[in-house]
Amino acid sequence: MKSTRRGFLQSAGLTGLGASALGAGSLASRATLAAAATPAEHGVVPFYGAHQAGIATPTQNYLQFAALDVVGDSVADLRHLLKTWTEAAARMSRGQAIGSMQTGHHPPVDTGEALGHGPNQLTVTFGFGPSLFHSGKKDRFGLARHRPVPLVDLPAFAGDRLQSAISGGDLGIQVCANDPQVAFHAVHDLIKQGISIAQPRWLLAGFGRTANSFTQALPRNLMGFQDGTANIMTEDAAAMDDFVWAAGPVSPPWMRGGSYLVARRIKIALGLWDGTSLDGQENAIGRFKIGGEQLFNMPHTAHILLANAEHNHGQQILRRGYSYTDGVDPVTGDAAAGLMFLCYQQDPRRQFIPIQHRIAGRDGLSQFTTHIGSSIFACPPGVKSGGYIGEQLLAHP
Amino acid sequence: MKSTRRGFLQSAGLTGLGASALGAGSLASRATLAAAATPAEHGVVPFYGAHQAGIATPTQNYLQFAALDVVGDSVADLRHLLKTWTEAAARMSRGQAIGSMQTGHHPPVDTGEALGHGPNQLTVTFGFGPSLFHSGKKDRFGLARHRPVPLVDLPAFAGDRLQSAISGGDLGIQVCANDPQVAFHAVHDLIKQGISIAQPRWLLAGFGRTANSFTQALPRNLMGFQDGTANIMTEDAAAMDDFVWAAGPVSPPWMRGGSYLVARRIKIALGLWDGTSLDGQENAIGRFKIGGEQLFNMPHTAHILLANAEHNHGQQILRRGYSYTDGVDPVTGDAAAGLMFLCYQQDPRRQFIPIQHRIAGRDGLSQFTTHIGSSIFACPPGVKSGGYIGEQLLAHP
Repeated sequence: MKSTRRGFLQSAGLTGLGASALGAGSLASRATLAAAATPAEHGVVPFYGAHQAGIATPTQNYLQFAALDVVGDSVADLRHLLKTWTEAAARMSRGQAIGSMQTGHHPPVDTGEALGHGPNQLTVTFGFGPSLFHSGKKDRFGLARHRPVPLVDLPAFAGDRLQSAISGGDLGIQVCANDPQVAFHAVHDLIKQGISIAQPRWLLAGFGRTANSFTQALPRNLMGFQDGTANIMTEDAAAMDDFVWAAGPVSPPWMRGGSYLVARRIKIALGLWDGTSLDGQENAIGRFKIGGEQLFNMPHTAHILLANAEHNHGQQILRRGYSYTDGVDPVTGDAAAGLMFLCYQQDPRRQFIPIQHRIAGRDGLSQFTTHIGSSIFACPPGVKSGGYIGEQLLAHP
Repeated sequence: MKSTRRGFLQSAGLTGLGASALGAGSLASRATLAAAATPAEHGVVPFYGAHQAGIATPTQNYLQFAALDVVGDSVADLRHLLKTWTEAAARMSRGQAIGSMQTGHHPPVDTGEALGHGPNQLTVTFGFGPSLFHSGKKDRFGLARHRPVPLVDLPAFAGDRLQSAISGGDLGIQVCANDPQVAFHAVHDLIKQGISIAQPRWLLAGFGRTANSFTQALPRNLMGFQDGTANIMTEDAAAMDDFVWAAGPVSPPWMRGGSYLVARRIKIALGLWDGTSLDGQENAIGRFKIGGEQLFNMPHTAHILLANAEHNHGQQILRRGYSYTDGVDPVTGDAAAGLMFLCYQQDPRRQFIPIQHRIAGRDGLSQFTTHIGSSIFACPPGVKSGGYIGEQLLAHP
């Protein structure tokens, strides 16, 4: 074949309608089609601010979560990584590539798959795991004395079946967006930029978010029940202050305005659940399945009863979980699926931990769900343009 | 706690703005919010017709693919399964539940997670694998004499690293929709309905579809290149007749108007690719990365050159692939990601197989991609309301 451009166009065998799809004009008009549909859900969530984006941001439709481990012990490398990530996250949040794609003999800086997709309310939220402050007896980065008291190692809960390969992580990155390709591009390019300093430990994609805004329709989780009814609403500034934002004196100055993220991968025994009567399902949860109203005769063990604020000294958490699917479960032969439970709070010691101790192994859902992954991260406050995430911790460690 | 409804609402700790989110009125208004946004992409693709939906349907945004193995050897069970699945798929395609959710002491028929989501252009496409016609030396269902000649066992290709757990399947179900929860619900409920007769072998979720319609913006795959430029366009009826729809005399009467689906899970060596120069990437593909135009000096080994029609005796395939992600690759430590390559054709012996033999191990992409899963399915024609998928094969086996 003569590999001229004209010859190639002809050789593709798409004459008539087909050939026009190959021309440059047609490529441009297709791109215009995509760009024309840009309502608010495809717009920008500002990256810089007092708080990191992705916490008080109403949940977007898609999740990519990355947990990474730092390879070496160099605090300078860690600082460099966070500066690089901050700049990249800020650019991607604006819908921009992280760097040049016209690189000739060098690899493109941006991998390119989000080009033309727009920002899609991308948020990137960074957190520090306990192992960044200690690893065994070693104070790897000289940060041990800065470890926030609320950043505890999570205790064992009844029924836990944790797998270390999908638990923990020195660093956590929560990426949310209204376009799954935009979300993947962000974790992909952050991993790529940091690969010599931090390597992925576990990654998970999610969809079907928990509602946490008055603007959102209530979604259903993969058990078919509505999720988010009793959540903290991100518009409720008082609740955000009381329950979500880290504050003194408990949290050190570098964490104030940040939040503590607990991430639990919860597998649903889908076949067992699907074979349970409607009554049994509703009693396990404590709600009517279709309408979502609370049951009139609430069993003692109903999930929403044991999880609610009155049973937990008024404590609440800000949930922003996502459903996930993961092929076939090798044990049960069912579709492997579940909930990536993500929750933000001021202090896990008075919020997630006691709530989970109250629920685990006792509530109606426990027989249908298994916690298989567990992580905790201290997500520092936001920064101004020119700063970097974690700067108050890492400027003078 | 007194578990009255009123007491519960108070106990949830959401007063003011919060409390209103729990009321029935608020639930209704949230549902209205969701229902109001219903453009065409959320509408219905008719299930019944001369062809199965999901082949000539322009690719929707999300994929769930299920391959299942039939447990026993009963053709009556198989027929019953296909009747049940046909009815359920038709209902879900209209946005309806597959059966009652108000079942009291019995399990809900429909699992409920798609309630309120609308049809979202859901399509469900069924196919029969070679193992349904033969399994070893055994003619399990008495169907061996009806096996279509084009439904060959795919040969080995250079570079294949196939894993049996994610290859093959007696039955294949391609589910596509513009809402990932609607797509998951469909495979979930089809698996649930058939679980005593057929069990999941492999499942995979996808996003970022290959374009195959003049109405679609050209998407980029996870290598950052546009995908679908030289694809058959589903609106091109002549190309569909020449290259996609099964026809006599090669295909038996029961398959005419159907199509043969080849499904290949192709892993991308993302770290290796990302570390390759822009020039190297463009030479591997044969296109400019940003603009998508063909290179002026096309290398002999460019993917689009070896895959195109002129190099393949004018043969083409209808691609409708999707990107996938799958956690961390245990070998490379990169994000595990790739392409679920799906292609429909009239006869794989003159289309996918020779094209793939020409490409495999030879084109510029081969060093960056590995085929790890492989399946082939004969997808029968569509049916009229009252009929069932495969009826011409199974009515008098």
